[in-house]
Amino acid sequence: MATWTKKDLVGLYELSKEEIGLILDTASSFKEISTREIKKVPALRGKTVLNLFYEPSTRTRVSFEVAAKRLSADVINISAVDSSVKKGETIIDTGRNIQALKADIIVIRHNSSGAAAMLARHVDISVVNAGDGWHEHPTQALLDMFTLKEKLGKISGINVAIVGDIAHSRVARSNIWGLTKLGAKVTVCAPAMLIPPGIEKMGAKVSHNIDDALKDADAVNVLRMQFERDEGGAFPDQLEYFKKFGITKERLAKIKKDIIVMHPGPINRGIEMSSEVADGANSVILEQVTNGIAVRMAVLFLVAQAREKA
Amino acid sequence: MATWTKKDLVGLYELSKEEIGLILDTASSFKEISTREIKKVPALRGKTVLNLFYEPSTRTRVSFEVAAKRLSADVINISAVDSSVKKGETIIDTGRNIQALKADIIVIRHNSSGAAAMLARHVDISVVNAGDGWHEHPTQALLDMFTLKEKLGKISGINVAIVGDIAHSRVARSNIWGLTKLGAKVTVCAPAMLIPPGIEKMGAKVSHNIDDALKDADAVNVLRMQFERDEGGAFPDQLEYFKKFGITKERLAKIKKDIIVMHPGPINRGIEMSSEVADGANSVILEQVTNGIAVRMAVLFLVAQAREKA
Amino acid sequence: MATWTKKDLVGLYELSKEEIGLILDTASSFKEISTREIKKVPALRGKTVLNLFYEPSTRTRVSFEVAAKRLSADVINISAVDSSVKKGETIIDTGRNIQALKADIIVIRHNSSGAAAMLARHVDISVVNAGDGWHEHPTQALLDMFTLKEKLGKISGINVAIVGDIAHSRVARSNIWGLTKLGAKVTVCAPAMLIPPGIEKMGAKVSHNIDDALKDADAVNVLRMQFERDEGGAFPDQLEYFKKFGITKERLAKIKKDIIVMHPGPINRGIEMSSEVADGANSVILEQVTNGIAVRMAVLFLVAQAREKA
Repeated sequence: MATWTKKDLVGLYELSKEEIGLILDTASSFKEISTREIKKVPALRGKTVLNLFYEPSTRTRVSFEVAAKRLSADVINISAVDSSVKKGETIIDTGRNIQALKADIIVIRHNSSGAAAMLARHVDISVVNAGDGWHEHPTQALLDMFTLKEKLGKISGINVAIVGDIAHSRVARSNIWGLTKLGAKVTVCAPAMLIPPGIEKMGAKVSHNIDDALKDADAVNVLRMQFERDEGGAFPDQLEYFKKFGITKERLAKIKKDIIVMHPGPINRGIEMSSEVADGANSVILEQVTNGIAVRMAVLFLVAQAREKA
Repeated sequence: MATWTKKDLVGLYELSKEEIGLILDTASSFKEISTREIKKVPALRGKTVLNLFYEPSTRTRVSFEVAAKRLSADVINISAVDSSVKKGETIIDTGRNIQALKADIIVIRHNSSGAAAMLARHVDISVVNAGDGWHEHPTQALLDMFTLKEKLGKISGINVAIVGDIAHSRVARSNIWGLTKLGAKVTVCAPAMLIPPGIEKMGAKVSHNIDDALKDADAVNVLRMQFERDEGGAFPDQLEYFKKFGITKERLAKIKKDIIVMHPGPINRGIEMSSEVADGANSVILEQVTNGIAVRMAVLFLVAQAREKA
Repeated sequence: MATWTKKDLVGLYELSKEEIGLILDTASSFKEISTREIKKVPALRGKTVLNLFYEPSTRTRVSFEVAAKRLSADVINISAVDSSVKKGETIIDTGRNIQALKADIIVIRHNSSGAAAMLARHVDISVVNAGDGWHEHPTQALLDMFTLKEKLGKISGINVAIVGDIAHSRVARSNIWGLTKLGAKVTVCAPAMLIPPGIEKMGAKVSHNIDDALKDADAVNVLRMQFERDEGGAFPDQLEYFKKFGITKERLAKIKKDIIVMHPGPINRGIEMSSEVADGANSVILEQVTNGIAVRMAVLFLVAQAREKA
């Protein structure tokens, strides 16, 4: 059986199939803890987990905070709004200072691709990437894969469509790396201008037709359209997008089979999918949230273990 | 004896006399914990309490956070400033996501009347209203009533004057519902434009003369005048208000009896009352703060218990 | 042996040589805890520590938060941005309200000199000054002295140069009080306009030449130049400052001896010192951060103990 030896989780690109499998198996055994009356185990008692968020992300921060507390870790939150960053300190200096506090794990969210990897190289303590620019969001992809495996029994051989703004999505990138390593087939589907050039080299097929993409898929992972970030006006009109790419009851009815509908949240109802679909029988969106706790507990536990063994 | 079966605390309007009594009795037994050397009991160990604040309110958030931690719960704070709300997510979606984290209790503060009730209907976990618009602020009224009972030995038959901006006060509304259910007589006292039409139907008498109101009262609950929110200029001049409605030593001397002076805080000294009164022998304002911890511990404990029994 | 009887830590000015020694000795025994696999002792279990920060300071807040949690205290953070302060409540009212919550220790950071002392006089619970205006930052000076003692074996008789904006530095003031009480010789070094008049009366020598100051020193404590606060344009040009006062490898080579380089952080690399020096063999900057945890654990422990004995 695989063992975990890495002090960090920077991305799924760096992981072997066995390492990804080990995280998913560990998450599986942790999931039950959140169903107990006393949702707490002493695995990380006396450890300090520091959430270092340069971008606001309540969902991801809260998920990591809950995961760490259920493992009995002490959790410290730092948001860039009130941090030394404003005083011009580099990420590396910030990281070394956190290490000097004898913290054990830094969970970092940053708007620059590569920030987590750079931090990981410069500190001896563990670094977990909670999303870096357009690069990777590995725990999101891991919870997506955990959910797929739970629903379909396996990942090898399944077809997954990823729909939406692929070009600016770290969630898409992490999913493509992870899913293809475990033997799934991935199709990305979006308007041409939201597909990055060279995506095929990552192992994904490209489609511009949502009905084609759905027809072949066992699961569809619908990305959030971040219209609020579209400063250049590159995005299509919202209504037009919904008409061409929105997931609706009618579209799902046409494909005549059970398909799993996923979304990393928060959903723009009526843009990426209809409310009927978001709340319907195919949707596993809230189960993804539940699984996020288990996956993050697993990741925090494994990276902490690796350092103790080292 | 009454038993508590509700998963939520939305308002005092919904509660029976017996249920209010049960909260006050439970708070009574919890109050002693905060006087111990080790101020902690394991009642909510392994439970997750999530403070979801759409309006800033340090006092109420801190009081709930202290209460939850003294019961050994894990506490997660979410402020709307950095939350998914900014991304347009509905309260219901936010609530369902929090439920999917396997949190146990959501403590919600929201600027819309009815927000807590709506959330409570859409999630299976417990919802505690920490103030919703002009509607209710039940734990504030409960701590006011706890303080009155502690000081006067009973609530039935006592006279309570509530002074200030009744029209925009959730504290006033919750107090009126609670006090009248327990048999107290309530008089609201304010300039005419700060008295909402139809308040008599809630069971309160109306007065526009502070000296009359004080003369009849065993206790006076002085509301904060939120001048900072008075965008329309509906409020009287501050000096004028103090002269006509401010609680002063002279006014208290005239009534020739002990009267209990309460205020939910923070006080505008020299507007709602003089500093002499705020810090004087009649004031129980800081005891209200202490009792707030006991009452919130009781509420968190009871709603969590109700779900476990269900 | 000295015993600690003060409920507060307001500044080093108020402390005796013996009391400072006691804090440093206590910190010494606490330092080992942060090297354990389970970095937690039950010393403050069931106590409530409240961080009340009127100025943002992630470093100091996080250091106190980590220290308190390693002692098993419950920690509540209040930042002035979202606090009742905006509603015009005085520090004294805020302090009395926190006391009414049955909190045990208030850690206060405030932009007004004297804020911590005033708060300490008006509450019975413990107050720890985490920096007040230009007045004092006692735990920073204590961690500096702890580091000096650890490196040099003693403080009595050593020479310490403090370089930078002495006029606006609470760190400088606390260091001067503490170091001179323990028998060290202190030289402050800066451009004339950054030296406050009368500093000699505190027991410090004044120099305007960095090479002279370094030549005599066993250690140099380099202050952060807060160019972002220099609204009046009183500060020298940054390049000019670096040329005249910046600590460089070349400057250190000239003095032909081991000198300890300290900085309270965050460093402006290339302004107060070169990166070579910041990361070089003489620098103990990250050890200061580590020692900060031990010193703050000691202070929180001692003030809490003093109240229990009282």
